[in-house]
Amino acid sequence: MTQSLHTRLADYATIATKLGVDAVALVPGPNFARAVMHPFMSHERPFMLVVPASGAPAALVPNLELRSWDLVGFDGAVFDWRDQDGYDAAFKALTDHLAISSLAVEGQVMRVFVHHALLRAQPDLTIIDAEREISAPRMIKTPQDIDALKGAIAISERALARTLESVRLGQTEKEIEQTLIQALFAEGAEDQAFSPIVAAGDGSARPHAKARADYAVKAGDALLLDFGARKHGFAADITRTVFLDHATDEGQAVYDTVLRANLKGFDVTRAGVTAHQIDDAVTGVLEASPYADRIRTKTGHGLGRDVHEAPYIMRGNHMTLPAGTVYTNEPGLYEIDNFGVRIEDDVLITEDGCLSLTQFPKDLTVLKC
Amino acid sequence: MTQSLHTRLADYATIATKLGVDAVALVPGPNFARAVMHPFMSHERPFMLVVPASGAPAALVPNLELRSWDLVGFDGAVFDWRDQDGYDAAFKALTDHLAISSLAVEGQVMRVFVHHALLRAQPDLTIIDAEREISAPRMIKTPQDIDALKGAIAISERALARTLESVRLGQTEKEIEQTLIQALFAEGAEDQAFSPIVAAGDGSARPHAKARADYAVKAGDALLLDFGARKHGFAADITRTVFLDHATDEGQAVYDTVLRANLKGFDVTRAGVTAHQIDDAVTGVLEASPYADRIRTKTGHGLGRDVHEAPYIMRGNHMTLPAGTVYTNEPGLYEIDNFGVRIEDDVLITEDGCLSLTQFPKDLTVLKC
Repeated sequence: MTQSLHTRLADYATIATKLGVDAVALVPGPNFARAVMHPFMSHERPFMLVVPASGAPAALVPNLELRSWDLVGFDGAVFDWRDQDGYDAAFKALTDHLAISSLAVEGQVMRVFVHHALLRAQPDLTIIDAEREISAPRMIKTPQDIDALKGAIAISERALARTLESVRLGQTEKEIEQTLIQALFAEGAEDQAFSPIVAAGDGSARPHAKARADYAVKAGDALLLDFGARKHGFAADITRTVFLDHATDEGQAVYDTVLRANLKGFDVTRAGVTAHQIDDAVTGVLEASPYADRIRTKTGHGLGRDVHEAPYIMRGNHMTLPAGTVYTNEPGLYEIDNFGVRIEDDVLITEDGCLSLTQFPKDLTVLKC
Repeated sequence: MTQSLHTRLADYATIATKLGVDAVALVPGPNFARAVMHPFMSHERPFMLVVPASGAPAALVPNLELRSWDLVGFDGAVFDWRDQDGYDAAFKALTDHLAISSLAVEGQVMRVFVHHALLRAQPDLTIIDAEREISAPRMIKTPQDIDALKGAIAISERALARTLESVRLGQTEKEIEQTLIQALFAEGAEDQAFSPIVAAGDGSARPHAKARADYAVKAGDALLLDFGARKHGFAADITRTVFLDHATDEGQAVYDTVLRANLKGFDVTRAGVTAHQIDDAVTGVLEASPYADRIRTKTGHGLGRDVHEAPYIMRGNHMTLPAGTVYTNEPGLYEIDNFGVRIEDDVLITEDGCLSLTQFPKDLTVLKC
């Protein structure tokens, strides 16, 4: 096993010890990718890496992934299985080999069929959801992680610039979305971080709206774009809201409020702040405005290999955020059936403040299109 | 509730009755999309639709999705929750309202944190994994489903043609992958069905290879492309393998063997065939060849809203396949450290035979590039 793989896996042994469980299990997803530094898919085939508190790690690998698994440089026990045989015997062999009585899993990533396969193999196994603890090593970004994030963000911003240049009144949301997606890949994205939101007019008031093929953008609309590129395993997540042709007085006032909330987030962020304190400050600006009844979301979430990860920037989350954390600062105001505004930046926490990885301008923009 | 929504939800009530459980739960994914005919994302926020064997359905919906949920036309009870409050109270209210003692879930889609939230709300709830039964209504495609599949496949084939025209010796796998992805979106894809496989030379021998930025394709390489567009909620899944500049005698013989296996699949497919029978016939061709030791996968899988869904075309699966089923016919032979060949078509089963939805030529192709 390479030294770096060994070091990364040791983090999960430490987590198992801290949690007081015998082992930690990882399934394909962001923690798995961080651990083995190689991308793996997981559809209907169980695939699992188990790191005990003490002793050697072991893996359950679909047979047809063995050659790719070889690239990881893992030298623990490997239990493979073929489609024609099913995977129950491999789970039994794995649990017999490990001889553990408790296992911490990633509740947001592991699916129920794997959970049930584990319990069929060892009915007395205690399985706890330790998503937060297992994902913690990803929270503080390495310099390499930050470079990858910057790359994904730069691609996203170039794609946004191209898209806004091409918007014309009368285009549908769907057409604008298509332009944005093509621009992302033309600018070098490996994938989309998530399905983009391209929403105008009343659509912009739905935080998770889907682009409509039957809505043509018109003068006076707010146009909200929330999207991101994925590159080298990391995800960007950016939102900008612009106005088409003109902005009403109300539109300008709402935009100004959201922008002040976003800027407040930067003001209060430095190493040692809690997630609660950031959300309290940002949401506080919105609450003090005449638009408090339009608040529908928390301030944001962590960003990295996963587009939504810890820390969740919300009141009640008193987790202290160290330097190296990256989160989305994305206040918004949404008036149902009218319009919504969201401004979202990707923020890196530093010892004495913070840095916006997002550089795209956020002054109120009216597109003359 | 619209009549069509009512009818689709009634399918899950019937499934609950057949399974002998009190209700079926759906979480965002292909069954959920089929049920409500509207796309929903699900990251860290639980979102669930429960259809009891008798009585009205109910839903647990993140507050910020309520406006999108309104578009579904659902008139059952809705339990929403806000980020700042957490979701445990909503689960408790939902389970109190339902008053059920057993629940069937989609084991391949539901994640452990939802499973655990259900058990916190109702510790005596019996949860069974009924992925296969719950997904069954998606197996027989409607005419609308087939039109959507054809659309996704046509986009994919146009993108493949563009990509193959642009391949040049000395390009990296990564460059070819980038061309393919851009072509998919330029041709109208809404998304990629999955991360594509673009693998040449020894990479083609790894069934789930990832495109390498440091491997330049060279004369004599096999170049394998496995990819698909997503359109209107449906996924294409196509593989073609071509040879660059020239094909060795062994390359030609292996290709011919895989093609014969693929054609055998078409020969034996008609309504009433079992998944076992198809795989037995297809894999039988490979086993009877001099390359039997290069078999690493089953014949294929169902295709629809999910890129891997039932039926799994493998020996031991004695499920009878009705007309309207769509599956991938994708035999392959993989010699480690040398090369691999896979040919994959999307096949619609009809009463008296079958139809290849994939039309892209599959005669042995040598690109003079």
